Amino acid sequence: MKNTLRTVLLISALVATPPLSGKPDGGAADIRSLLEAQAAAWNRGDVPAFMEGYWKSPKTEFVSSSGVHRGWQAVLDRYRKAYPDHQTMGKLSFSELEITMLCSDAALILGHWELQRAHDHPGGVFTLVARRLPHGWRIVSDHTSTVSGQ
Amino acid sequence: MKNTLRTVLLISALVATPPLSGKPDGGAADIRSLLEAQAAAWNRGDVPAFMEGYWKSPKTEFVSSSGVHRGWQAVLDRYRKAYPDHQTMGKLSFSELEITMLCSDAALILGHWELQRAHDHPGGVFTLVARRLPHGWRIVSDHTSTVSGQ
Repeated sequence: MKNTLRTVLLISALVATPPLSGKPDGGAADIRSLLEAQAAAWNRGDVPAFMEGYWKSPKTEFVSSSGVHRGWQAVLDRYRKAYPDHQTMGKLSFSELEITMLCSDAALILGHWELQRAHDHPGGVFTLVARRLPHGWRIVSDHTSTVSGQ
Repeated sequence: MKNTLRTVLLISALVATPPLSGKPDGGAADIRSLLEAQAAAWNRGDVPAFMEGYWKSPKTEFVSSSGVHRGWQAVLDRYRKAYPDHQTMGKLSFSELEITMLCSDAALILGHWELQRAHDHPGGVFTLVARRLPHGWRIVSDHTSTVSGQ
């Protein structure tokens, strides 16, 4: 009976434990890596690799002063149209990232972006929502604004 | 011993149960009510009541093409400056709300906004993150864009 009790306690502990989620602060570190990988992909002109950061779903949303682009494919199409070549893509950098874990599998990210290009350097701010999916963290919502005079 | 076992099983069940969160779909309905209350407050010129929808914290963020306004007070100050009187405030309406529960106490909201004013009707899109706090749902992050030609 003592063994039974021990078994029940062990099962209780397992049931009460949230799903494995890597390191306790793994979320923020993983999201930071995701954004670094995105910037690196952008800067070698690899838009498909850049797009790997987004949830590959028709629900993924990109919001800006152009309105809402809905779905991973629409987000890709928008990037291709807005940045047709290496010159328009420029060199992307993210800064001042603030990652707030909303729960173990969702996070809010605030950050600044800048493009260094030959004749200008547009920049601004973005807020992302990322979710931890079975294959890792992905951006499910991206709202990006251009801030003039940055 | 049988009773002990029953007690342990009962405790296990309690530990494994997530915190009470009202109705299963209470989150979306409560958030919808929050936004309706905000629009109603705005339309009677009551900015403090409108601001009740935001988390009263120095961490609350409002993001737009003007950059980041950090903290509940800064958000209030921005609204007061951008909309100094009833004429500039106009009549606010929200539409096409899409509420995605990220977890039991966090949600992502996508929506459209419009101001009907005597001489124009600016509008656009917003993405909010709201959290369920002890006193109810509040907006912790607001990213709003004006979309021309709406």
